[in-house]
Amino acid sequence: MRGQTNFFIIKAITVPTPKKMAKNLTSRSEDYSKWYNELVYKADLAENSGVRGCMVIKPYGYAIWEMMQQELDRMFKETGHQNAYFPLFIPKSYFSKEASHVDGFAKECAVVTHYRLKVDDNGEIVVDQEAKLEEELIVRPTSETIIWDTYRKWIQSYRDLPLLINQWANVVRWEMRTRLFLRTAEFLWQEGHTAHATQQEAIEEAEQMMNVYADFAESFMAVPVIKGLKSENERFAGALETYCIEAMMQDGKALQAGTSHFLGQNFAKAFDVKFADKEGKLDHVWATSWGVSTRLMGALIMTHSDDNGLVLPPNLAPEQVVIVPIYRNDEQYDQTVSKGKALMTALRKKGIRVKLDQRDTHKPGWKFNEYELKGVPVRIAIGPKDIENGTYEVARRDTLSKEIIAEDHVVTHIETLLVEIQEALFDAAKRMREDLTSTASDYDEFKALIKSKGGFVWAHWDGTSETEERIKNETKATIRCIPFEGAKDPGKCMVTGKDSPGMVLFAKAY
Amino acid sequence: MRGQTNFFIIKAITVPTPKKMAKNLTSRSEDYSKWYNELVYKADLAENSGVRGCMVIKPYGYAIWEMMQQELDRMFKETGHQNAYFPLFIPKSYFSKEASHVDGFAKECAVVTHYRLKVDDNGEIVVDQEAKLEEELIVRPTSETIIWDTYRKWIQSYRDLPLLINQWANVVRWEMRTRLFLRTAEFLWQEGHTAHATQQEAIEEAEQMMNVYADFAESFMAVPVIKGLKSENERFAGALETYCIEAMMQDGKALQAGTSHFLGQNFAKAFDVKFADKEGKLDHVWATSWGVSTRLMGALIMTHSDDNGLVLPPNLAPEQVVIVPIYRNDEQYDQTVSKGKALMTALRKKGIRVKLDQRDTHKPGWKFNEYELKGVPVRIAIGPKDIENGTYEVARRDTLSKEIIAEDHVVTHIETLLVEIQEALFDAAKRMREDLTSTASDYDEFKALIKSKGGFVWAHWDGTSETEERIKNETKATIRCIPFEGAKDPGKCMVTGKDSPGMVLFAKAY
Repeated sequence: MRGQTNFFIIKAITVPTPKKMAKNLTSRSEDYSKWYNELVYKADLAENSGVRGCMVIKPYGYAIWEMMQQELDRMFKETGHQNAYFPLFIPKSYFSKEASHVDGFAKECAVVTHYRLKVDDNGEIVVDQEAKLEEELIVRPTSETIIWDTYRKWIQSYRDLPLLINQWANVVRWEMRTRLFLRTAEFLWQEGHTAHATQQEAIEEAEQMMNVYADFAESFMAVPVIKGLKSENERFAGALETYCIEAMMQDGKALQAGTSHFLGQNFAKAFDVKFADKEGKLDHVWATSWGVSTRLMGALIMTHSDDNGLVLPPNLAPEQVVIVPIYRNDEQYDQTVSKGKALMTALRKKGIRVKLDQRDTHKPGWKFNEYELKGVPVRIAIGPKDIENGTYEVARRDTLSKEIIAEDHVVTHIETLLVEIQEALFDAAKRMREDLTSTASDYDEFKALIKSKGGFVWAHWDGTSETEERIKNETKATIRCIPFEGAKDPGKCMVTGKDSPGMVLFAKAY
Repeated sequence: MRGQTNFFIIKAITVPTPKKMAKNLTSRSEDYSKWYNELVYKADLAENSGVRGCMVIKPYGYAIWEMMQQELDRMFKETGHQNAYFPLFIPKSYFSKEASHVDGFAKECAVVTHYRLKVDDNGEIVVDQEAKLEEELIVRPTSETIIWDTYRKWIQSYRDLPLLINQWANVVRWEMRTRLFLRTAEFLWQEGHTAHATQQEAIEEAEQMMNVYADFAESFMAVPVIKGLKSENERFAGALETYCIEAMMQDGKALQAGTSHFLGQNFAKAFDVKFADKEGKLDHVWATSWGVSTRLMGALIMTHSDDNGLVLPPNLAPEQVVIVPIYRNDEQYDQTVSKGKALMTALRKKGIRVKLDQRDTHKPGWKFNEYELKGVPVRIAIGPKDIENGTYEVARRDTLSKEIIAEDHVVTHIETLLVEIQEALFDAAKRMREDLTSTASDYDEFKALIKSKGGFVWAHWDGTSETEERIKNETKATIRCIPFEGAKDPGKCMVTGKDSPGMVLFAKAY
């Protein structure tokens, strides 16, 4: 595709990454974790709030999340789902109805016990002990219980099925060690909850949504993912089967990017949700649930970004192109801004998201820096020479290269370039993942690989929770998934020597 | 406008409202409150949940809310605002920093005191008393305090101003008497929070957002509103001035549809938010906040709907047109469905939201009923005779009238009709409000009007909280607003005889 546009390029320059970063970001090689925290903060994505473990999502970070929401919402609606909204609070008794579910979430719940404050005798604001709730309310960590309590009223007959509902909401899980986007006490997500007449249909729904997530990750986030099943240890609390998509980050740690659960009849039984089939026979319905969260922001950042800051795929960038005028006097300001406006209009007509930064309060160098830090895919500079020569300087964020483009061709060039950058990011992420994927033929090699290189490691496993637990304790690596595609040849478990039907994928994970 | 399309109409029929409602809704004249509750439930808008005072917003109700969100969000962005997200929880100490704010909200707060459940010796799930929070967290009833605690870090200089931010969120106010959409413990809303360098700019922002709300109410909801200022008694806790838009419902009660607050420097002082101006001089910033909520759904329902169910303005209807095929055999099914599909495609090309209901599980009569109940603005029936004659039967939800339209003109006709219905609903609502607006020349007349007719009553008031309180206690009517337009001639307070600079608007209110 690049070849098609080459003849419009008057001059191409690749700028080597400067040694001293203007953004003062810690480099990834120096301290990956510190680099991540600094980048999230400095690129205006999010910051810690005064509330333990809760983040503030800043406008730029939220704009990227809105882009994600918009595409996912479209994909959910195209597959027949409708949005609805269920209560934030869950009565404790609901929560307790599905045994493995409460086990999974009880240790990390925010609990509302009172409904009023008052001024005490010292003039202090205190909780009014007389306003104690009869039954405590849990702030939802996930909504299966409150939703299934509602579905009992909505489902009577096969005509009410399938029920295909999604909710965009905030949820709370009282994590002890938190990390912006990756693990926060409160996070934003969507949760799909569906009800079906047959087991087969519910399984197909769970698989479909895993595929929707994979498609979104690859086509919009430019993050390649591996699809598979979770082992029993890693399964959702209350699910019979958890489908997942797993991504690899630059530091060799995996990140679970989305999960879709086949819940069997567990919740239908716990909440007594039955339907009459065409013959009038009653049976419990079959269920799925599936979700992705603001955690995807972490995956996006850690897959593509570099020591200069964020790198955004064009399909999710709030601004795909920024135009910066360069001038020394009022006349040049007017000329470059006016040319910038014309270009902005022409690009917007093509559906491209463009911003013209004509602020006189900041110098071009500051602006270049800022948009590099914020990962805007394409930056166009217009200076007096460009006015003279009928050209634009077009810079790519991903490769940090610049080209001088003739004005007649600039719109076509940018259109092609955005597609090219989207593909290049995906390809680079795929190469990175391949470099970080190994196969271990025995447990010693496995331990060495996990310790030295990290990444995904294929290995044989005997299928038991005990062996998985032992590997986790000894190496910190867990089974990320039992992939649908890959090493399907049988072998012997690297730890116990027992039979293994095929290799599974291990990694240390976020 | 109607005249333009008349010549396409082959036959027009106005169907009188049947005496016995097929929907079995209580009529408005019989019991308005019961009618409202039944309509909300039967039109699939919302229902009560198992959690005290919290509602479930059902898919159809949520789809209307999404339409509202989409338009409001566009209007906010067009006026320069960005979205962001702040924590659900507010530490008790933050909440206490602005004295009148905590007074206003302390009595209706959900308080989180613990962060873990456990299984006790009897196998019961209980709150783990060892997991008690050092400082209690309040579930946000509104976010001024947590946001201003954040703004302190974001604002240093005049370059950081104005800061124009909006948040879409859920909030909780522990109301004792709740009502679907109108007053619920948890509700969905947006809250704008802006910071400015000057008092003048903050006041202009507060006024601008009141105007945005009024524009939205009138142009999209087809709900005419009166703009004005709240009296001190009705002002937001922590505001210097509250701007509002007030609407009149069919039962003669007013509904506050949106508020915009000029907060002065109250929150900037409470949270120590200062900025350096161009000369380096430090000063506290000036603030506004503004919000509308799912309460708008209540206003929408109670303004337009009738004894047959919901009536939706086309600009907010998730489906503007529904097409129902009528058939007696497979051949007719194929013909009418195929004609319906072609029409759907043609209408969608014009940007019209259309649904074709080709379900074979429900009879046409059932479908007609269903879409009347759900307020779909236009219903098109296609029967074997229409196939023969090249016509469609087009029914309007608002007037319950039907017309036979020739197929060559149907697309143009529907386009015009949707505009016409939107205008007709607004006009009807305005007439309804005019019928429900009176002027009281003395207090006896005022009391009689409020008691017999309800509605808006213009009257002179001396400007004191005491008099307003007395009127409220004696009549249940409150000052809805001090309108910007209207009776500006001075007079004497109807209660005390003291000077009044102009009449204000009273009503009983939701």
